Amino acid sequence: KTRVQIFKYVCMKWSLALLVGLITGLVGFFNNFAVENIAGFKLLLTSNLMLKERYHAAFVAYVGCNLLLATVAAALCAYIAPAAAGSGIPEVKAYLNGVDSHSILAPGTLLVKIFGSIFGVSAGFVLGKEGPMVHTGACVASLLSQGGSRKYHLTWRSLQYIKNDRDRRDLITCGAAAGVAAAFRAPVGGVLFALEEATTWWRNALLWRTFFTNAVVAVVLRSLIVYCRGGKCGLFGKGGLIMFDMSSTVSTYSTADLLAVMILRKGAVFKIIHTMSISLLTSCCSYGIPWLARCTPCRSGNFKNFQCPPGHYNDLASLFLNTNEDAIRNLFSGNTGNEFDISTLILFFIAVYCLGLVTYGIAVPSGLFIPVILAGASFGRLVGTILGPISDLDPAIFALLGAASLLGGTMRMTVSVCVILLELTDDLLMLPLVMLVLLISKSVADNFNIGVYDLMIQMKGLPYLEAHAEPYMRHLVAHDVVSGPLLTFFGVEKVGNIIQILKTTGHHGFPVINEPPFSEAPELCGLVLRSHLIVLLKGKRFTKDKVLTGSTEVFKSFGSFDFAKAGPGKGMKLEELEISADEMEMYVDLHPITNKSPYTVVETMSLAKAALLFRELGLRHLFVVPKTPGKPPVVGILTRHDFMREHILGLFPHFNQRKKMNEEQT
Amino acid sequence: KTRVQIFKYVCMKWSLALLVGLITGLVGFFNNFAVENIAGFKLLLTSNLMLKERYHAAFVAYVGCNLLLATVAAALCAYIAPAAAGSGIPEVKAYLNGVDSHSILAPGTLLVKIFGSIFGVSAGFVLGKEGPMVHTGACVASLLSQGGSRKYHLTWRSLQYIKNDRDRRDLITCGAAAGVAAAFRAPVGGVLFALEEATTWWRNALLWRTFFTNAVVAVVLRSLIVYCRGGKCGLFGKGGLIMFDMSSTVSTYSTADLLAVMILRKGAVFKIIHTMSISLLTSCCSYGIPWLARCTPCRSGNFKNFQCPPGHYNDLASLFLNTNEDAIRNLFSGNTGNEFDISTLILFFIAVYCLGLVTYGIAVPSGLFIPVILAGASFGRLVGTILGPISDLDPAIFALLGAASLLGGTMRMTVSVCVILLELTDDLLMLPLVMLVLLISKSVADNFNIGVYDLMIQMKGLPYLEAHAEPYMRHLVAHDVVSGPLLTFFGVEKVGNIIQILKTTGHHGFPVINEPPFSEAPELCGLVLRSHLIVLLKGKRFTKDKVLTGSTEVFKSFGSFDFAKAGPGKGMKLEELEISADEMEMYVDLHPITNKSPYTVVETMSLAKAALLFRELGLRHLFVVPKTPGKPPVVGILTRHDFMREHILGLFPHFNQRKKMNEEQT
Repeated sequence: KTRVQIFKYVCMKWSLALLVGLITGLVGFFNNFAVENIAGFKLLLTSNLMLKERYHAAFVAYVGCNLLLATVAAALCAYIAPAAAGSGIPEVKAYLNGVDSHSILAPGTLLVKIFGSIFGVSAGFVLGKEGPMVHTGACVASLLSQGGSRKYHLTWRSLQYIKNDRDRRDLITCGAAAGVAAAFRAPVGGVLFALEEATTWWRNALLWRTFFTNAVVAVVLRSLIVYCRGGKCGLFGKGGLIMFDMSSTVSTYSTADLLAVMILRKGAVFKIIHTMSISLLTSCCSYGIPWLARCTPCRSGNFKNFQCPPGHYNDLASLFLNTNEDAIRNLFSGNTGNEFDISTLILFFIAVYCLGLVTYGIAVPSGLFIPVILAGASFGRLVGTILGPISDLDPAIFALLGAASLLGGTMRMTVSVCVILLELTDDLLMLPLVMLVLLISKSVADNFNIGVYDLMIQMKGLPYLEAHAEPYMRHLVAHDVVSGPLLTFFGVEKVGNIIQILKTTGHHGFPVINEPPFSEAPELCGLVLRSHLIVLLKGKRFTKDKVLTGSTEVFKSFGSFDFAKAGPGKGMKLEELEISADEMEMYVDLHPITNKSPYTVVETMSLAKAALLFRELGLRHLFVVPKTPGKPPVVGILTRHDFMREHILGLFPHFNQRKKMNEEQT
Repeated sequence: KTRVQIFKYVCMKWSLALLVGLITGLVGFFNNFAVENIAGFKLLLTSNLMLKERYHAAFVAYVGCNLLLATVAAALCAYIAPAAAGSGIPEVKAYLNGVDSHSILAPGTLLVKIFGSIFGVSAGFVLGKEGPMVHTGACVASLLSQGGSRKYHLTWRSLQYIKNDRDRRDLITCGAAAGVAAAFRAPVGGVLFALEEATTWWRNALLWRTFFTNAVVAVVLRSLIVYCRGGKCGLFGKGGLIMFDMSSTVSTYSTADLLAVMILRKGAVFKIIHTMSISLLTSCCSYGIPWLARCTPCRSGNFKNFQCPPGHYNDLASLFLNTNEDAIRNLFSGNTGNEFDISTLILFFIAVYCLGLVTYGIAVPSGLFIPVILAGASFGRLVGTILGPISDLDPAIFALLGAASLLGGTMRMTVSVCVILLELTDDLLMLPLVMLVLLISKSVADNFNIGVYDLMIQMKGLPYLEAHAEPYMRHLVAHDVVSGPLLTFFGVEKVGNIIQILKTTGHHGFPVINEPPFSEAPELCGLVLRSHLIVLLKGKRFTKDKVLTGSTEVFKSFGSFDFAKAGPGKGMKLEELEISADEMEMYVDLHPITNKSPYTVVETMSLAKAALLFRELGLRHLFVVPKTPGKPPVVGILTRHDFMREHILGLFPHFNQRKKMNEEQT
């Protein structure tokens, strides 16, 4: 590449990062704006009716609005993009681990994610917008990195610079970080989230780029919020979350451990009905439960008077009949004494916890942060209120610590949760306390199970490469797990053979072997990819005899981006090729498209070390070569699936039994 | 390993992390405590004399104190541990990159680092304590990971659990992070510093462990400071740095680019004289320059009245005749209007900038952060004061932004500087501004040169492995850079041969080849390390004939930690071996100590990809194997030095010429 091209390329990468930040920031603002207006309208309608003491009409209006919104959200998910349901963080995490699953980052998913999330949050479900925002940011980045979507005829030629896995992954990491930054207005927290939770391969250059993207998000959000302060944005309030101040000394407690029960059901109509019933349940809870509370004289803040006379407020309604963000703000607000009754907090905690568990199973874009923060904050405030007489801490501090501990226990993130919470509350004096609580909660939770996102990746059956090699891998060598017959090509191969092999197998990479007359003895030449083979075959540069055509000859017929990696689900299909019977008998030189520096391991290499190599370098194919001469030059190919637990334990069931025996002994 | 052993091992690692945090926190506090008391005594003495209008006596007292302190610091450095001079961050960075340099983390270095830093900072030099604190933390971690120091007869058997490179490196990373946390009371910033600047290999488990260590540091510091608030610590003040509040809108400017000129000179006495002369210069500056300033009526804060009557203050003296931390605090203090005159700020900026450049060359433990913050803050405040009439921003904000931009331009750290500054100032509203300024300054500086720490690593000639492969590596293959004759051992080798080879070469690893009768054809068995060979030879399990002794036989004579890696500069020496002439003719089986899964690359592998493999997996030896059968099973070994720029450009000088030609053309 020339100097100018490199410069252009670097500029491209940075402007794409800028665009990702810009668009994610705008989407994040739009999201907040829409939610606050829709939910605000709904709550205003209800409370106006209640002020007129028309309680039944208020109930009908409230439930009606919720049902309508929930139905729209569920319908969007069920009919347009089923992949948009749920949090999206596990999928993004798996993608960044190298799982190239179709439709995770498709444009349809993006649209449904945005609007589904808006309607879902407005419908008053106990779910958050931050998981969907992460997914949205990743989708935006993915679309930009592909230069638009071919399916929807939205393509920008000028953006189609990024055509390899690594750059695309980098941009999507930026997108995920920007999502967190936009959802919480926590730019540094977003960077740390990307680092701690999302990515598998991290480089320092990435830190710098995600930081840039998040700075853009922060500036966009800030300027839009400043613009909105003039009252030009309807019911849109402050955008960010919470600010409160307090004095602090040390006091801690352990954490509960949330296991998200996923109710995966089939059938689009059923999904919608399911969502509607959950919506009905949530609505009834949030409208019905507040009747149990007594009225208390009003002090200040964003409190609801519900059925109470003016100047009084209903503490349960302040939590239930409110947007989730306002409920959190109420729980975190300090210097308000024992504003919430103990019974209120117990009721709210139980309701939110149960609703959160049930809600996570519905087919609507849903984040986990907000429900966890809600549950944690109410639990913490409960503890704080109970300990009130013997502790001089503000219950609001307990609410913050409760939220931190539940987040740490659920997500198993530490530094990022810590920074996100600090950015939310804008109080750095809490740092040591929050760190302590996070440490305890994560340690306790780690004894029971793995983090909720890893759990979800397992449930969805995504082939995620773990950071650590499993202990049984140390007793195996690379050759042990090689599976299936090995299919190889010669350096100059018959077209018919290639078509035959491509048709009969689904492999993505094949070893290329040089044989006499092109080398003295059979030797490994390199790796050729299925997608490159198809492009080469389409070019139809075939020869009658077994001869080397040379690279220059081949690259005359192809542009520089013909071999570049297409987006997920894109690229040429084998079926598009039309090869005549004559051509089938001809030869094609594979050398120009062969990667001549494949990574290899000797067959006696410990599987644990091979797995380390595979993961650290982010490989898709790893050749296993023989130890002693005399064998064929390659004895197998290792792919991601060969390192999966299921595959290995299927081949060597005794490891599983031994493990069980070990567990029984101890 | 059994389950119990694993559990013990994990507990060990965590308790070591706890200990590192505890000790570093204590050292950090002691450091602050000592500096504030010594410097406070010095300043009190001077100002008392000045109050009595004995200006010459005050000058003599001030200069005398400074000279004494500087001499002690320089003498400590020159005579006890020359490795302790300077910042120490480059050395720690190189160590974490795999450079096993002697004495970097020795106990002597630790002691001199602590006391040299205390005396150096107290002497009023323009230098900080954060670089030395990072080094101190790393030294503490290193000592703990070795279970104490054999040289000083301080060993704890029970701590000698960690005996491999990776765990030691992890612990030292924790130590470096704890150092930043202790120097700035910025625990999250410390974690990010370790991640962004210090480490080469990062794992998520490390994030979690450094976070824990820093939480411990934060708690230790907090409780000690709370204890000191009762006035029991002499002149010790608040410990942390700065707190100020402000309102903010956007305004930015670019940055200067500091190139630290290192004046490295030889000869211990000369070093001390050099240090003393710099000390004299600094003292004269800080005592002499304030006479130029006018007196201004006093408002509040930590200001000096110097020669002024009571109720007035001298703004130059408030900056010069103060500890560096107090000067920064004064510069950052908001709502004080144009407290500092423009001429004052210009003078101070120039003086600090020049003194900083000169000071960094002296042989005293010196950090770069504080001088850079001082220069940046005074420059920022200068700009703020000049722009005062047309901007409604507080000059203190400009000071913060100036410090951020100069830090970003010098260190090229972004996220960590951002978080450290936020933790220092405790004001999250500044985040977008600081991010913006950092982005600009880093981008501008990156166009000129590399970061100051990388520059220093280059100057010291440490073989640092860069994250990116150089462009010329793409035109080379692994075989091209293999140097020197390859020395190999057979699986069962004659003792005399081993001794001979160990004596004549300095290599740390050798390939082991199996030959008939132990295998059908010559084949690569694995890698054997020099240190393991020496241990094996010491055990004297020799045989008369070429036979396999088997592992069980060999491991009977050795304990489980005999082969564990000793600390840097420790371990057995070749000279300690005593082998008789008879034994020289005997054989020893190397199989039990051979690593049978070495990583290998084919000789035609692109050098860039081999370098990637080498760095990502943190290797020390990489075997180059032949592509075609018939050659010997190993054709070479690649080590760290084979990837160094100097080595490659020495072998292929035309790359250098081509690069120069390119540069001339453009």
